[in-house]
Amino acid sequence: MNSAEFALDPRLAADTRLVVSLSLCDVLLTDDARYAWLVLVPRRRAMTEVTELSDQDQATLWREMSHVAVALRAAVPCEKINIGALGNIVRQLHVHVIARNTGDAAWPGPVWGHGKATAYASSRREALIAQLRKMLTT
Amino acid sequence: MNSAEFALDPRLAADTRLVVSLSLCDVLLTDDARYAWLVLVPRRRAMTEVTELSDQDQATLWREMSHVAVALRAAVPCEKINIGALGNIVRQLHVHVIARNTGDAAWPGPVWGHGKATAYASSRREALIAQLRKMLTT
Repeated sequence: MNSAEFALDPRLAADTRLVVSLSLCDVLLTDDARYAWLVLVPRRRAMTEVTELSDQDQATLWREMSHVAVALRAAVPCEKINIGALGNIVRQLHVHVIARNTGDAAWPGPVWGHGKATAYASSRREALIAQLRKMLTT
Repeated sequence: MNSAEFALDPRLAADTRLVVSLSLCDVLLTDDARYAWLVLVPRRRAMTEVTELSDQDQATLWREMSHVAVALRAAVPCEKINIGALGNIVRQLHVHVIARNTGDAAWPGPVWGHGKATAYASSRREALIAQLRKMLTT
């Protein structure tokens, strides 16, 4: 695997902003103010399933996911964290980590495919990215 | 944590059948013939989030999940594996591993909350459980 050949799927790129690059994954904020919604993308080429990663990369992915989930909950108080790796539409391997609360737009259902995204006000988005970046790099 | 105090949530118990008990997780087959749908439940008491598990238990959970995903794909040819830990309704920590195919009942959306389950014919269910049990114990 050559991470130098990694390129983010254009649909993920269009819907998200980079928060931080961890040792394996880029952590992205989905531009949807309805939920605080992060996506981890391992910088590995042509991966679709978690099980295609090496054992070591899988272990790193889940450690980074856990780190991201703890940071997200600290930044955005929430009732439940939702984790998902679906990839039915965008096949590039990616893992969602989403802060959920009773009464949010899709509650108690899953967020994927539910209605249309509501873009953040740019000041709010940049503040959240800065807060998460700080939490994930210290 | 005392796994002796573990009890499966009654809603999970009502919707599933036990396939096998791995070192950490019980692996359950959801009684819904629309998708081949497994659920891993760590035998730990009062856990809601993956991040509440010890680091060692988290590592075991993801190893067992990967093992289950590989077995499921071998038993049931599929286009994509979906993995999810939501828990918005049933709070007991559980991880879904689901075989998905173009044209299945919820494709390309998520399965959670989509329509009503279609119970397996009992002979088909028992054959699938036996096949998965064999793959997960050898």
